[in-house]
Amino acid sequence: MTRGQAGGLELHGIEGLPEIVSGDDLGRLIAERAAPLRSGDIVVVAQKVVSKAEGRLRSLSAVAPSPRAQELAEQLHADPRMVQVVLDESVRVVRADRVLIVETRHGFVCANAGVDRSNVPGADVACLLPEDCDRSAEELRRRIAEVAGVEVGVVISDTFGRPWRVGLCNVALGVAGMPATVDYRGSPDDFGMPLHATLVAVADEIAAAAEMVMGKTRRIPVVVVRGLALEGPAGSGQELVRTADLDLFR
Amino acid sequence: MTRGQAGGLELHGIEGLPEIVSGDDLGRLIAERAAPLRSGDIVVVAQKVVSKAEGRLRSLSAVAPSPRAQELAEQLHADPRMVQVVLDESVRVVRADRVLIVETRHGFVCANAGVDRSNVPGADVACLLPEDCDRSAEELRRRIAEVAGVEVGVVISDTFGRPWRVGLCNVALGVAGMPATVDYRGSPDDFGMPLHATLVAVADEIAAAAEMVMGKTRRIPVVVVRGLALEGPAGSGQELVRTADLDLFR
Repeated sequence: MTRGQAGGLELHGIEGLPEIVSGDDLGRLIAERAAPLRSGDIVVVAQKVVSKAEGRLRSLSAVAPSPRAQELAEQLHADPRMVQVVLDESVRVVRADRVLIVETRHGFVCANAGVDRSNVPGADVACLLPEDCDRSAEELRRRIAEVAGVEVGVVISDTFGRPWRVGLCNVALGVAGMPATVDYRGSPDDFGMPLHATLVAVADEIAAAAEMVMGKTRRIPVVVVRGLALEGPAGSGQELVRTADLDLFR
Repeated sequence: MTRGQAGGLELHGIEGLPEIVSGDDLGRLIAERAAPLRSGDIVVVAQKVVSKAEGRLRSLSAVAPSPRAQELAEQLHADPRMVQVVLDESVRVVRADRVLIVETRHGFVCANAGVDRSNVPGADVACLLPEDCDRSAEELRRRIAEVAGVEVGVVISDTFGRPWRVGLCNVALGVAGMPATVDYRGSPDDFGMPLHATLVAVADEIAAAAEMVMGKTRRIPVVVVRGLALEGPAGSGQELVRTADLDLFR
């Protein structure tokens, strides 16, 4: 960095990870290929590889769609078995119009409950979100600490749509070893006035930044973010899920 | 970067900008302090300094609140003059419950029409969003090209809340000299299957990433993003505004 520049942040994609399959020791694979990791680094891992390592895959040939799934599938021109898998992962259908927008068991509102068939071996296989994304993040964090001897933050990310704006952005589903938010509430602004209501979802910003390095077709499911000095106790992905009664935008 | 790392991205905050006032040549100030800029760099500029340079400030003492503003202000325990300023910037009130969520003249759905009083000199002054954020971005891009002789992308960012998720994230209000989205639709995934419906709002991801360097209280309103090779024609912030009839999430 030259003079006049501050607050540098670096993102690097990790190449050379093998195709991940159920039972793989993903934490070790990341720790080895991302070397040298430093304490304070944040490791962003695409949900897809976490789900694969955890065996969160369902073969559509073994799915018997319910009448409701069949009805929705007809309405959406979709595969009724795929709709059934989505319903099995959901607690509520938010909208069924061209695509199925649901609330997942985790509380995420997204298309198809995060279930998809891209980057999965076999046309017949659907990949589900991890059962507990914060637990998955914590397991990766602990395993990286064991293997590499460094304390990193971990974010498990996926690509979600959102209301009112075009296009998808990566968000944080699971968080470990770092705060999920930065609270500017009560801090003075540059003129000494208190800042109101500024709670920044930094884990979502990290996920969004990492997506630019991951891309979708470059086989880079892990990105290391370096230079972000986050203070405060470790947070969770669940913290970022807003319950309906507190949602001013609904 | 060492072996096994790819797709590096660097973000640097620009320090040493003076307090920006109406009429300042912001493009020149940025070009000088961010030197050496390179073609292909993306310059993310916080809306607040753009608005200040453009004189988008209103003195509350000159505002006469309408009966509607007074009524809303009572309901929200807010300053009726501030409510009037927000209404003047809005085409629709989405929700008035603790905070005023509106659709702005640009089509953005956000709290208080992006109007705020933090980091503004004088307790009586409200800062408005730029009138046309894409035009502001294009003017900055052109001025930086004139002064520094480099073709950069420009993103004008602000911090917005969003439905369903806790915390705010920076988004792109204005875009110039770079695409606003990356279209993965039709690209094959790693197994050769077509990827469906993946249009990524890369300008929002850039804005989100830059927020981590800007912070809110560190007087770093400009961040340079280096290493992102975006292809395709220049886009706009308006492209990222989803009209209600195309919004699957509403």
